[in-house]
Amino acid sequence: MPDKMRAAIFVKPGEIVLGEKPVPQPGPLDALIRITTTTICGTDIHILKGEYPVESGLTIGHEPVGVIEKLGSAVTGYEEGQRVIAGAITPSGWSNASLDGCHAQCGAGTQHGWKAIGGWRFGNTIDGAQADYLLVPDAMANLAPIPDGLSDEQVLMCPDIMSTGFGGAESGRIRIGDIVAVFAQGPIGLCATAGARLMGAAEIIAVESVPARVEISRRMGADHVVDFTREDPVEAIMRITKGRGVDVAIEALGKQATFEAALRSLRPGGTLSSLGVYSEDLTIPLDAFSAGLGDNSIRTTLCPGGKERMRRLMATVEAGRVDTAALVTHHFGLDDIETAYDLFGHQRDGVLKVAIRP
Amino acid sequence: MPDKMRAAIFVKPGEIVLGEKPVPQPGPLDALIRITTTTICGTDIHILKGEYPVESGLTIGHEPVGVIEKLGSAVTGYEEGQRVIAGAITPSGWSNASLDGCHAQCGAGTQHGWKAIGGWRFGNTIDGAQADYLLVPDAMANLAPIPDGLSDEQVLMCPDIMSTGFGGAESGRIRIGDIVAVFAQGPIGLCATAGARLMGAAEIIAVESVPARVEISRRMGADHVVDFTREDPVEAIMRITKGRGVDVAIEALGKQATFEAALRSLRPGGTLSSLGVYSEDLTIPLDAFSAGLGDNSIRTTLCPGGKERMRRLMATVEAGRVDTAALVTHHFGLDDIETAYDLFGHQRDGVLKVAIRP
Amino acid sequence: MPDKMRAAIFVKPGEIVLGEKPVPQPGPLDALIRITTTTICGTDIHILKGEYPVESGLTIGHEPVGVIEKLGSAVTGYEEGQRVIAGAITPSGWSNASLDGCHAQCGAGTQHGWKAIGGWRFGNTIDGAQADYLLVPDAMANLAPIPDGLSDEQVLMCPDIMSTGFGGAESGRIRIGDIVAVFAQGPIGLCATAGARLMGAAEIIAVESVPARVEISRRMGADHVVDFTREDPVEAIMRITKGRGVDVAIEALGKQATFEAALRSLRPGGTLSSLGVYSEDLTIPLDAFSAGLGDNSIRTTLCPGGKERMRRLMATVEAGRVDTAALVTHHFGLDDIETAYDLFGHQRDGVLKVAIRP
Amino acid sequence: MPDKMRAAIFVKPGEIVLGEKPVPQPGPLDALIRITTTTICGTDIHILKGEYPVESGLTIGHEPVGVIEKLGSAVTGYEEGQRVIAGAITPSGWSNASLDGCHAQCGAGTQHGWKAIGGWRFGNTIDGAQADYLLVPDAMANLAPIPDGLSDEQVLMCPDIMSTGFGGAESGRIRIGDIVAVFAQGPIGLCATAGARLMGAAEIIAVESVPARVEISRRMGADHVVDFTREDPVEAIMRITKGRGVDVAIEALGKQATFEAALRSLRPGGTLSSLGVYSEDLTIPLDAFSAGLGDNSIRTTLCPGGKERMRRLMATVEAGRVDTAALVTHHFGLDDIETAYDLFGHQRDGVLKVAIRP
Repeated sequence: MPDKMRAAIFVKPGEIVLGEKPVPQPGPLDALIRITTTTICGTDIHILKGEYPVESGLTIGHEPVGVIEKLGSAVTGYEEGQRVIAGAITPSGWSNASLDGCHAQCGAGTQHGWKAIGGWRFGNTIDGAQADYLLVPDAMANLAPIPDGLSDEQVLMCPDIMSTGFGGAESGRIRIGDIVAVFAQGPIGLCATAGARLMGAAEIIAVESVPARVEISRRMGADHVVDFTREDPVEAIMRITKGRGVDVAIEALGKQATFEAALRSLRPGGTLSSLGVYSEDLTIPLDAFSAGLGDNSIRTTLCPGGKERMRRLMATVEAGRVDTAALVTHHFGLDDIETAYDLFGHQRDGVLKVAIRP
Repeated sequence: MPDKMRAAIFVKPGEIVLGEKPVPQPGPLDALIRITTTTICGTDIHILKGEYPVESGLTIGHEPVGVIEKLGSAVTGYEEGQRVIAGAITPSGWSNASLDGCHAQCGAGTQHGWKAIGGWRFGNTIDGAQADYLLVPDAMANLAPIPDGLSDEQVLMCPDIMSTGFGGAESGRIRIGDIVAVFAQGPIGLCATAGARLMGAAEIIAVESVPARVEISRRMGADHVVDFTREDPVEAIMRITKGRGVDVAIEALGKQATFEAALRSLRPGGTLSSLGVYSEDLTIPLDAFSAGLGDNSIRTTLCPGGKERMRRLMATVEAGRVDTAALVTHHFGLDDIETAYDLFGHQRDGVLKVAIRP
Repeated sequence: MPDKMRAAIFVKPGEIVLGEKPVPQPGPLDALIRITTTTICGTDIHILKGEYPVESGLTIGHEPVGVIEKLGSAVTGYEEGQRVIAGAITPSGWSNASLDGCHAQCGAGTQHGWKAIGGWRFGNTIDGAQADYLLVPDAMANLAPIPDGLSDEQVLMCPDIMSTGFGGAESGRIRIGDIVAVFAQGPIGLCATAGARLMGAAEIIAVESVPARVEISRRMGADHVVDFTREDPVEAIMRITKGRGVDVAIEALGKQATFEAALRSLRPGGTLSSLGVYSEDLTIPLDAFSAGLGDNSIRTTLCPGGKERMRRLMATVEAGRVDTAALVTHHFGLDDIETAYDLFGHQRDGVLKVAIRP
Repeated sequence: MPDKMRAAIFVKPGEIVLGEKPVPQPGPLDALIRITTTTICGTDIHILKGEYPVESGLTIGHEPVGVIEKLGSAVTGYEEGQRVIAGAITPSGWSNASLDGCHAQCGAGTQHGWKAIGGWRFGNTIDGAQADYLLVPDAMANLAPIPDGLSDEQVLMCPDIMSTGFGGAESGRIRIGDIVAVFAQGPIGLCATAGARLMGAAEIIAVESVPARVEISRRMGADHVVDFTREDPVEAIMRITKGRGVDVAIEALGKQATFEAALRSLRPGGTLSSLGVYSEDLTIPLDAFSAGLGDNSIRTTLCPGGKERMRRLMATVEAGRVDTAALVTHHFGLDDIETAYDLFGHQRDGVLKVAIRP
């Protein structure tokens, strides 16, 4: 194992560079994994643009696939050389939030805390996955062995994209026979579509305008794709549902336009499952929400993490229930990660997700 | 039975008058009840002010206690002379919404419809309870016999106030040991406080400034009452909860100030249970909602109705688990209902609820 | 409309005959439908054998597909001539049980009752569907219009088989990624398999030995089919799950052998969803249930009914999410129903379900 | 800190003696606590009698109240000298079962295991609390600081009795207005009664014959106490509920007689919450369970553990919502623990729980 490693480092807004850092040493509860594949997330672009603040010098990235290089002194049950993933969210398991089942809100580093999004540590409060090596905290709660026969790319969406997207379907409490709308078909919205299909939705209406995404949306399970540049999505949904509205609307963008359209497309008693990271204050129009009298819910979901979640997602991939390989549209070496950021950040060339291989 | 009866009739915004109407005749599924006690709701004041539109000529009121006078030809299982209540919301039982458990959104009058707040008919889409007689639609789903030994006043809060207030606690999914904040201690907020206590909340923080309501809030179960005119309620809640925030916040006013304070008082993963009728568009500030990443929920609840709900609430009163007698602060005859509206509408003389006895 | 009609009548144990009855007249809440297709259920065979007692002279059958012939005087929202189905279970909508969401336990005929399986009326407490005409009680809660384009056979499984089978998956609260075992692959077990697949189970293990059922089990979604005549099903399940056990076991036979094997195949915390009609007292062996310390549940489900349930199931068929056409292996006219009983009762000729067309 | 300590050691069936053991040294994830108060559980009597097998030489006891003496090298967030409790069940937090919210089934010591009752370690698979010192595994998930102002005795019921009893009410999913029966009013049954009251049950029927327990049962919240030696409990429950049956029956003994009576007392759709440790195979009579068609559930619950659970329970005590002080009927020093076993094991002198103070 070398002393130094490459890492994609946030310098200042507008600048993420490939730099060099010492290979970290695992503490008693940690594991060091050698990254074999990782990717860039939309959230990383928020960081790059300075919209989501992190400390200068931090290594970015929260979607690791790799091999165990070294285990902390108190870590048992794993072997060096094992292929593993870890979720984007790394709950401790032992925090009060985590013990209450609220893993993503695990107050990492505090004993009793319930700090919002405290469970998101990689590339947020500690060094992340876009590097040769990654230190995984609370390794026993977070390292999930990859089933034999699954490639890196087959599980690359599990740490964040699939966990978040499926989480949106789950938080919507979709039932067999539901009608579901999914607003925006980026990688997370696409996985929400797949999740809605997996949970038994009878009719899935995706809202998207980019042709390549329309195409893959249908492959992931959408029955209808509404192009909001051509018709008002609420009107289209009401037409398709014969005026009934949808049981569950999944919002995967975080903007007022989609949030409000999602509200307006709900049937009385319906649920808005909110996945998009809000980039502005959102307004609930009085009339879109029946003045609070419609028995509606808005539920937000941060990517569920922890090794049991990862095990379940990989089991779903292994069983062939979902195939996210098509989401990986481009490949780069770690040395080319700045190019990858440029491509992904500008959404060029029909990019959905990039695979980065150190 | 006379031909004519007295009724509190909405004429135009600003004008509800006691007038005369024919006593209605029950259709096959209806029942006619003679009102023995009823009351005025805050919603009726919204109607009076023209903030919530209803048709001119409509009899107002949705909180009936009475005696069965006449049963529709297809109604079985009841006897004339029986003392009964009906909920403010009168689900048909047979609508799709109702059969799906979403009784308050029952699309009354449509076969397959899911019209928002369609279950609220009394004093909204059909003649209401502030009269000598009331026609109860879908009587078999809605007439709930009053247990022997309970007075009219003991059950007067069941049709709306208690059902809605408890509903707010239930929608918050309060668990044993939770910390709960209740914003505003009007009649519904007070019943939400009682409901939180009944569900096992370990600590209940009410937010209210009117001294008489502060007093009764403690009697209904509040451990702390924060006077928002003296200190910022979010700061007070964070102080009381040692920075943790509350598991559940119940909002019982429907204004931006309380809605936003309720959001800001939530712990990560916490739920805002929204009971207040919104009187304006509401804004979700980015920072108050962790940009949608806090695993928080906002759940709205319209008063649950139907005879089974009423049976349960009356059983709770009968068992002495809750005592809402103290909420009835004033008494009037039906002839004096305009005076009662004046008192209640201006919140004079410490009024909480008035009992109207035809 | 004629005065007389044909009907399959239970005479005494061992004897169901095609006889003649007057065509019934609908009461105010009823509808008369002309049966176009119906079928025989395993429960009917229990009745035939005298294992489940019903009154002599009763018309058997609870799975109607038909056309509205005549509506009761108080029934609105339907038209004569409409194609409809009704569930095997016909909740009133207005009973306390039904208003509490427990439709199948609706105490039909009593006001406040919660009589077990009271919701099952057709061919149990009132005349059933194996006839030219059927009286549907509480028609507004039970008549579900058939979507255009769906044939009788496509919806024939909805009233009971699909509703019960899916209900077993739903009561198991299957989550994405679960491992599920389904014991017995008769029509209901096959639909439980399909339901488990629809809800996102990652791995489905069916237990069945009849070759034709093994074949269709795979088509309905089973990943593994264990032949219990060749190996112990618990051992097989533990081998397949690598010693972990299943998250949910669905029991669709009601015998000690399958019930006990289902218990033994559960992981700690797992749920046994019990669909089979018990034909004997069942024993919970101390060691199969961790002496009551395994956080396990046993949940029983009677076929969910009501028009909203039927609407959802037909929507699922319409969307192509499930295809139960293959379950109909034989066709008979009503005149040949005694032959059909003989074939079905003896499970000859690979029969799964028969379609009976008056 | 001395080298040696006293401990109540299981030698062989019939023999638990006070012996001497070395004071253990904490591993990296452990904490050593000095016991200030502990107690004897009914399960310990099962161990004593040889009905529940543990290894010879094991220290018994799983209900610790104490002071942190020494922290493992990897344990952060606590201080030596802090007053703490730990639950009877000590989940790791990081096992798959624990991460899935199934803490009591946490397969301690295995990486991926879901071993039944694996979360129960104290006095079962590792040395327990009836000693001068106790090693707490996975300390960060299990040590719960005692709020200032609460005495040892006030929190002594939290680790097992209250957590299990409340767990029975929670697993019954009791709703406001429910009617609940609790079979057997030993310490756990009494806490189930208190839990049912806390969750809003309108009517609680306890079944018990020992006069002292009848008395305390009423103090804990029972509205009726049925003496099963004087009348058949099912008949009494049906009389009290006017033939309706109970929504939830909690069984706290684990014998056929109470299990069967609990089943027979359920309304259709009702839930049996099973807390008692089964001491024999249990039978579900066909007729007591509506042949599996009553939409009933049987749910078993092992004592929920982990520090967050303990925090919630202590908050409930701190708020005065429940008072279990009356359950402690006798006090002993550790030197007299054999006498305490004799008294408790033979249920002499009206004993409910004993406090043991090293």
